[in-house]
This record gives sequence, C-alpha cells and structure tokens, in this order.
Amino acid sequence: MPRINNAYASLSSSYLFSEIARRVRAFQAGNHGKDVISLGIGDVSQPLVPAVIEALHRAADEMADAGTFRGYGPEQGYAFLRRAILEHDFRRRGVDLDEDEIFISDGAKSDVGNFQELFAPDAVIALTDPVYPVYVDSNAMSGRCGGYAGGKWSRVVYLPCTAENNFEPDLPETRPDVIYLCSPNNPTGTVLGRDALRRWVDYARENDAFIMFDAAYESFIADPEQPRSIFEIEGADEVAVEFRSFSKTAGFTGLRCAYTIVPKKLKAAADDGTVLSLHGMWLRRQSTKYNGCSYVVQRAAEAVFSPSGQAQTANVLNGYRSTAAMMLQRLGKMGLCAYGGIHSPYVWLQTPDGMPSWEFFDLLLNRAAVVCTPGAGFGASGEHYVRMTAFNSPENTSAALDRLASVL
Amino acid sequence: MPRINNAYASLSSSYLFSEIARRVRAFQAGNHGKDVISLGIGDVSQPLVPAVIEALHRAADEMADAGTFRGYGPEQGYAFLRRAILEHDFRRRGVDLDEDEIFISDGAKSDVGNFQELFAPDAVIALTDPVYPVYVDSNAMSGRCGGYAGGKWSRVVYLPCTAENNFEPDLPETRPDVIYLCSPNNPTGTVLGRDALRRWVDYARENDAFIMFDAAYESFIADPEQPRSIFEIEGADEVAVEFRSFSKTAGFTGLRCAYTIVPKKLKAAADDGTVLSLHGMWLRRQSTKYNGCSYVVQRAAEAVFSPSGQAQTANVLNGYRSTAAMMLQRLGKMGLCAYGGIHSPYVWLQTPDGMPSWEFFDLLLNRAAVVCTPGAGFGASGEHYVRMTAFNSPENTSAALDRLASVL
Repeated sequence: MPRINNAYASLSSSYLFSEIARRVRAFQAGNHGKDVISLGIGDVSQPLVPAVIEALHRAADEMADAGTFRGYGPEQGYAFLRRAILEHDFRRRGVDLDEDEIFISDGAKSDVGNFQELFAPDAVIALTDPVYPVYVDSNAMSGRCGGYAGGKWSRVVYLPCTAENNFEPDLPETRPDVIYLCSPNNPTGTVLGRDALRRWVDYARENDAFIMFDAAYESFIADPEQPRSIFEIEGADEVAVEFRSFSKTAGFTGLRCAYTIVPKKLKAAADDGTVLSLHGMWLRRQSTKYNGCSYVVQRAAEAVFSPSGQAQTANVLNGYRSTAAMMLQRLGKMGLCAYGGIHSPYVWLQTPDGMPSWEFFDLLLNRAAVVCTPGAGFGASGEHYVRMTAFNSPENTSAALDRLASVL
Repeated sequence: MPRINNAYASLSSSYLFSEIARRVRAFQAGNHGKDVISLGIGDVSQPLVPAVIEALHRAADEMADAGTFRGYGPEQGYAFLRRAILEHDFRRRGVDLDEDEIFISDGAKSDVGNFQELFAPDAVIALTDPVYPVYVDSNAMSGRCGGYAGGKWSRVVYLPCTAENNFEPDLPETRPDVIYLCSPNNPTGTVLGRDALRRWVDYARENDAFIMFDAAYESFIADPEQPRSIFEIEGADEVAVEFRSFSKTAGFTGLRCAYTIVPKKLKAAADDGTVLSLHGMWLRRQSTKYNGCSYVVQRAAEAVFSPSGQAQTANVLNGYRSTAAMMLQRLGKMGLCAYGGIHSPYVWLQTPDGMPSWEFFDLLLNRAAVVCTPGAGFGASGEHYVRMTAFNSPENTSAALDRLASVL
C-alpha cells in the first residue's frame, strides 16, 4: 500500500457544518421540504454593494481586451489592493506596515488553515475552547495534535472561554509554540479588549511564542476605541500574524478575497540554527502552492475602500448589527442568557436548563424548523451553548425567534 | 524560539520564476527599461473570449440582487460546472466518473501543491527530470525529499527524460509511493502516448503506487487518437489523480479556475490498519482548508463549455499552436535542435554547443533582450536546454526569433 498521512485516520468523520447540513437534509426529506430558517452557518445574505458590482463589471471588460487583459498576477496580490488595505485598515489607525507584509488570498479559511505548515510537526498549539474548527483540524491533519479522546486532543493546550471568565482566555500554564486567538470571536461573539490583547502580546514575547490572530470579524467592532488589529498593540509585530477577510466586511463569501499580515520581524530558528523569517517562509509557501486571487475579485475588493464602497458596506453592516441587537433583546425577554452580538454578528446562547447543545439543536430543528450551530461542535467548553448568527434577514430572524419562543 | 518547519531551511532561496524576474528587472534597470520580449513564463496573452466575458457580467449581476446572490458555495465546486466538465471532458471521450469525483478549485498549482499533504511524511516520491518545480518544492516543504546536495534531493526517485529516451521516463528501479507525471509535459512539451500511459498505470497497480497526473495542457493535444486523460487507460481509476486547469485551455491564468479528479477507488491503509479513501481525505482537506472557487469565476468556466465558448477558445488555441509551429520551423532553420511544440505550447530547445542553460539564458537576455526559461531550473536533466513558450503574440515571437538568430 502507498504510505499515506496517518493523521487523517484520527480525524472525526465530518466537519461540523457538514454534519449540520446532513441533519437539515434529513429533516427536510422527512418533512416535505419544510421551510427551515437558518441562523446557523455564518454566511451573509445581503447582495454585493453597487460599488463592488461596478468594479467587477469594469474588471471583466478589462479582461476582454488584449491591451488591458491580465494573466498571472503576483502570488501575494496586486499592489493596488495592498495599498488600499494598508492605507485604510492600518495607517488610519496608526499602524504602519510594509506593503509587502500584506498577502492577498482567496480566503481567511485557506490562509489560517495553511499557515500551520510553517510550524514544526511537534510544535505545541494553544487553542481557545470553544474554537473555530479550522484551527484544530488543520493542525490535526499535520499530526500536531496527538491522539483524540473524550473530545480533546492530547497535545493541544486548551484555553477555556466561558461565562465564568467573561470569555477571555487565561494565560496557559504550559508554554505553547503557537497560540490561536480570534476576536471578535467565532463562535462566542465576544471581543478581546486592549488590555487582554496586550497581556497576550506580552506573554508571547516573553515566551517566544507566535500568535495567530483571526480578525475576520473586525468590521463589526462598534466602539472606535477598541483595537481592530492586534498590531495596534506595541510589540505585536514581533509575535503576531493577522488574518482578515472581505467575507463579512463586504459580503464576499461567494466572491472570495482575504488578506493576511505577516510582519518581517517574525523570526525563528530551525534545528540547524538557520534563522528563518515567517514572512519569507509564507512568501515561499504561497508562491509555490498558490497562484494568486482572481484579478476581477481583487478589483472588486479594492472598490470596498472607495468612498461609495465604504458608505454602502457600512450600511449593510449596520443592518446586520441591528438584527443582532434585536436578537439579544428578544432572547433576553424569553428569559434566555445570551452573549456577544454587540461587536460581532454572532450571538452565543446558553441552552435552557443545561440542555446539551446537540439536543437543543435537534429540538430547534425538529420542532421549530430553525437551524443554529451546536456549541459542542466548537469544543468541550461550548457544551450548553449554541451559536446564532445575525446574517439572515430581519424578517426571517424575527420569525425564527417567534418559532423558538413557541417551543421553549 | 518557537519550533518551526525545518524543511524550509533546506529549500533553495528562490523559486525559478522569481529568479528569472529578478534578472530581468536587473537587466531593465541597467538598460533604461529596454523592451524585453518574454518567451519565458507560461502565461497566456490573448484576452478572455466573449462567451466567458458575458458569463462574468451575468454572474456579477446575479451577485447584485438578493434573490440571486450567492454566498458560500460548495467547497468542491458548483454542480453546474462539475456536470459541464464531466460531460464535455470525460463522457464524450468514453470516461465515466461520478460528478463528485470532480473538485473545482482556484488553480492546478494549488491542487498539485496541496495534494501531497495526504501522503505520509516518509512517502517516497518519483519525479521526472526535468520537472515542474511545484511537485518537488511542495514535497520538500513537507520534509519528504530528504537532504539537498548537488542539485538533487536524497529521497527522491528521479526519472530522467532526455532526447536519448525520447523524453519518456523509464520505469523506476526503486518502488516509489507516488509518481508525478505531466503530459503534455511542462517543460519539455512532449507527450506520453497511450502505450506509455498504460505502462505507468500497470506499474502503479502492480506496485501499489499512486500517480499524480498533471494534464493542465491537455487542450493542446492535436491528435484525437491521443489520450487526453489518464482515465482513458483501463485501471487508472484505481491509481491516478488527475489535475486540470482552465488557465491554458481558456486563458484563465488571471481569473483562476481548475479542477482535480480523485476517483473513489483510490484507497490506502494508515499504520493502524484504517483504510482511507483519497477521495474522502481530499474532501476533508478541501472542506477544512479551502472555501471554494469564486462563484463568478465558476460561471465563467461553465461558459467555456458552451458552443460559442468552445468555438472561441478553439480559435485562440489554434493561434498559439500556429505560433509554436512557426517557432519549431524557424529554430530548425537556425540549425538548432528543438522538441515539443506540437501537442503543447512549449518548445524545448537544446542550447547550441552544449552551453549551460543559465549561460544561454543570460546571453539571450543581455544581448537579445529575449527571456526564456533555463532548463536547469527544472532539474539536472534540463541542463543544456531552455524552455520557450508559444504564448506571446506571433509578431513578438517572430521578433524574438530574429533577435535570437542575430546573436547565435
């Protein structure tokens, strides 16, 4: 037999969202395709804004003409988009980066999933619990997580985030090589403030660890004083990589565009003493195994930063925010305990009477035809919670909450 | 220090095409930006055909309307595109596949670069020499190639392809776990006929090996009797994965779309005896670390298979073919020895008087302002050859050949 990657044998058979999709299909098959309202998977529902659509059309026309046609682009992305990102997302907030510390890609899921390749097979990772499954699964596929038993991987340092610690992870007792943080958090919808971020940056500097900072939801941060980038914290450029996306900011979940910041100061030594820069390693990885994001999509992303693009996307984001506010208010009125939903499109709902989260998921699906995401799917500390998203329309969300109220 | 992937310390500092770009920039900086004609990197020059442009515009309009907007798509690609591929590229040539054995992605480079993750870290790979650098670099990054010295990796089985064996690799003396084959070949421009493919499929079946078959250039095959897919060979679906792309077929190098065929019959056992299907593993890999190809791009790719898309892309391909034919004819008249260029956009040119390939590259660049790709960059057996592509315009290509003739 050919030798294959053994680590895949330890993976659970299905990814959380595939399992949810399977249960929904089974429900619909048994209920004549009954209309299900999903507050489950975190996909946007509003169309792309006019500024983005116009840019797509313009770019398509450029591709029709030999004089303006673009073939292979830079694997790291076009300068026009990197400049727009640098100016808008960083310099305006007092963060200076080199333009080539920004890498454009087709998705934050790809980048955060692939980035672990740069770490040693025996590097120890720390994960918040609950956690976005991609961090753990991508590391498990590289054999970095050890054995899986009782809902935990033997070599992972878990950092529980619960109502008890206000969903802010405590510093680990054992030193990890790599720490994954996500803020605003998926799934809890809570946010790490400046002090919490500083504590983590200081910890990483003192302990020679890297922080993988997932900021895919930064555009939902409502308070201008709140950091939107980990690079707003001094010294973060010595320890952190930041992942960002146009998916939630501008509805690009179907169009596909994201970007990752890898500062040139991030260095580590190989066993033979060679000092490698993570920036150089990522550039090598991307130029070997990736060929860049679609030109037309990069032009569409650039348009997000135009004045009309900014106004139009802000409008869409405000719509999602007001849906989240409505959810929090109505769940509270039902006597339920909900977190997040302020700087985030996610509401983290405690199940009533300590009901297990998959049981609550099945109750909502089978009795109310509403889909949520069971917290246990995000880790042991997600048990007794479900995640609900504010991405559905206000009408559908309101109807889902009516249905929910009726089965409680 | 955080523990990082040591394998990166053994990688040469730059990817072939980056090194070429560096030398071209240096030449231009020293020559007042003199006009350089590139027959180097394999990028297309003709714009996207009208059928594709129309599909892009239609899809952009769909994304502007809440009723037709598409968010996250299936990680494996939309059924409309997988069906079009299955019907056109396979069923019409007598090959039956399941629709879900086709995985859509943003590029064959991504897929062929990522696929090695499914193999054991100590799996032995066999590579033709010369070879597309992505196969070797992606495996080297996973530590699978051993140490690098004297232009070779210690754990790789090399299969030399030279004029002596008509660029058809001999079967290996040591059994590898995975064999990379590319036909029509990059860089030699030669093609493996039905008998050669059958010999490799039989070898893989008898030796429990997998074949990674890169068919990115299949649309250049001019002879209808010649297999375009390895799955036209009986039993290949037990041993082969096939990589295909819209890049060269329809000029999608800037738009980004490709597809990979992973038959469900491909199985292997993990050390603990668990039998894993490569199809299931790849699906798990893609759904964990990838979020699908842009919807607008998938619609554009679908349009390649429409009657007008087929006629228009055939016209473009014929243009490249006639450029290749002109190259072969004129290089022959100069008394040079050239291979490939018939079922391929690549001409594999022997350097005159056994000149080393980087020396010939520098001569062409510095004295003729023509860029080619040094064969040595593709492996030891590529020494004394350079790759030239037929993707530039007939006028530029003709001018480049004039310049070449003048410095010989």
